Amino acid sequence: MTAFLRLGPVGAERPALLAGDRTYDLTPLTGDIDAAFLAGGGLERARAALADGRLDELPGAGALRVGAPVARPGAVLCIGQNYAAHAAESGSLPPEHPILFFKHPNTIVGPNDEIVRPEDARTLDWEAELGVVIGTAAWQVTAAEALAHVAGYLVGNDVSERTWQRSESGGQWSKGKTAPTFCPLGPWLVPGDEVDPTSLRIWSAISGAPRQDSSTADMVFSVASLIADLSRYVRLEPGDVLLTGTPEGVAMSGRYPYLVDGDVVEIGIDGLGTQRSTVVSA
Amino acid sequence: MTAFLRLGPVGAERPALLAGDRTYDLTPLTGDIDAAFLAGGGLERARAALADGRLDELPGAGALRVGAPVARPGAVLCIGQNYAAHAAESGSLPPEHPILFFKHPNTIVGPNDEIVRPEDARTLDWEAELGVVIGTAAWQVTAAEALAHVAGYLVGNDVSERTWQRSESGGQWSKGKTAPTFCPLGPWLVPGDEVDPTSLRIWSAISGAPRQDSSTADMVFSVASLIADLSRYVRLEPGDVLLTGTPEGVAMSGRYPYLVDGDVVEIGIDGLGTQRSTVVSA
Repeated sequence: MTAFLRLGPVGAERPALLAGDRTYDLTPLTGDIDAAFLAGGGLERARAALADGRLDELPGAGALRVGAPVARPGAVLCIGQNYAAHAAESGSLPPEHPILFFKHPNTIVGPNDEIVRPEDARTLDWEAELGVVIGTAAWQVTAAEALAHVAGYLVGNDVSERTWQRSESGGQWSKGKTAPTFCPLGPWLVPGDEVDPTSLRIWSAISGAPRQDSSTADMVFSVASLIADLSRYVRLEPGDVLLTGTPEGVAMSGRYPYLVDGDVVEIGIDGLGTQRSTVVSA
Repeated sequence: MTAFLRLGPVGAERPALLAGDRTYDLTPLTGDIDAAFLAGGGLERARAALADGRLDELPGAGALRVGAPVARPGAVLCIGQNYAAHAAESGSLPPEHPILFFKHPNTIVGPNDEIVRPEDARTLDWEAELGVVIGTAAWQVTAAEALAHVAGYLVGNDVSERTWQRSESGGQWSKGKTAPTFCPLGPWLVPGDEVDPTSLRIWSAISGAPRQDSSTADMVFSVASLIADLSRYVRLEPGDVLLTGTPEGVAMSGRYPYLVDGDVVEIGIDGLGTQRSTVVSA
């Protein structure tokens, strides 16, 4: 398995490739892992360069901060209630159609960065999600064509403030989804041809206590179905991030407390790595 | 009054400044009217250059296509039901809080470009809106501080497909708001210090027949209140576009037919210019 990542300080991340236990520098190939790199077949070129021995190791990679694995998406699209058991814990039936809403792209942070709780956010929740990064534009595509438009997959946390989501925007959810740091992504972007998105374990834990533990096999709408459906309504662009919904086991269910300062949010998906975010006050 | 605009073919627009009946070339000052230009005080520098006689006229400006007046916003934020009479025609009470949703930024087109109706879009509607372009980042600001974060104002059309908005996304509106060409902006960006956003006439006409005719004085939440409220939930970024809601007189009211191919959508706001978009089939 190869994994693409961005290492370094906020705003100055450099592109890298992880293969086995070695990390290679991608700066000779590209300035960043972004829409242009993905749309231009960058993942394939990087893997070919690795296979040909043309990449150099990145010294000291293990000491660098891990950034979100894709730079400056044009949009972050989110799907609601895409696991039946989560819809039920939210008080809803499984949806008839995929439910779309957006987060502002400026919510994105790295997988181990802090989640900053705004002072009046008292019902802060986690949502472990399989993230899809688009590689080529998708407009009115079929489910059979859909996965060819995927660059790769990553771990995402659709951090949510439930009061803002449900009570302060007339039923539209975005207000509770879009404060700064509300979208940890990564650690890695794994190319689509190395991942079967239909049966990945997905889990979360809060300060060491298990919360979500499910499989993408339980999605109401598969990744391919989601892309096909969304592409009737929106042209998905290279670099866009699609968060595909969260399984049961969030605080909104009433079974667990909401996040408080100092909580450590761990989220993982088979083969895509693990996040570890600490909640801090603003 | 000075007005900023972008002239030329799609994807190759050049920045310009309109003063009286003359159009000046801004390319010596900036490559584009974008986040970096706005955040760096570009509007002020351009007006100073004009006052000092340092700008050259752009020959043949009148023959060039008019693009959207701001390039590549990081986000397009929209407000729902911000005029009481429109909320009523939509079957709703005026909202208690501003209602936020997003459009994908790739919906943006110029003020006279075609609105492309997807084949199965049979309830296509117009929404004349006052657009606000953010100049400096706004997070947790007061209403008194809010207007200092505005770069300028423009005319926007929040094109909406009502069936998609209301019936195909579990009540979340974005699916009906975000197909390509669903966000005509412009013709101009007028600097915030040259506009009083609290009492502008705003109107629309379909193929010559009057539809909306209202005033921003009828907003439930003023521009300053909207920015202050939103900034509790989302960090507004330079270049972001905020569409502030539409007044009564849309097709969803049942008083007018939905848009059909060949319809001409005209939208205007006092001092901010007029759009003229033709609806075509995909």
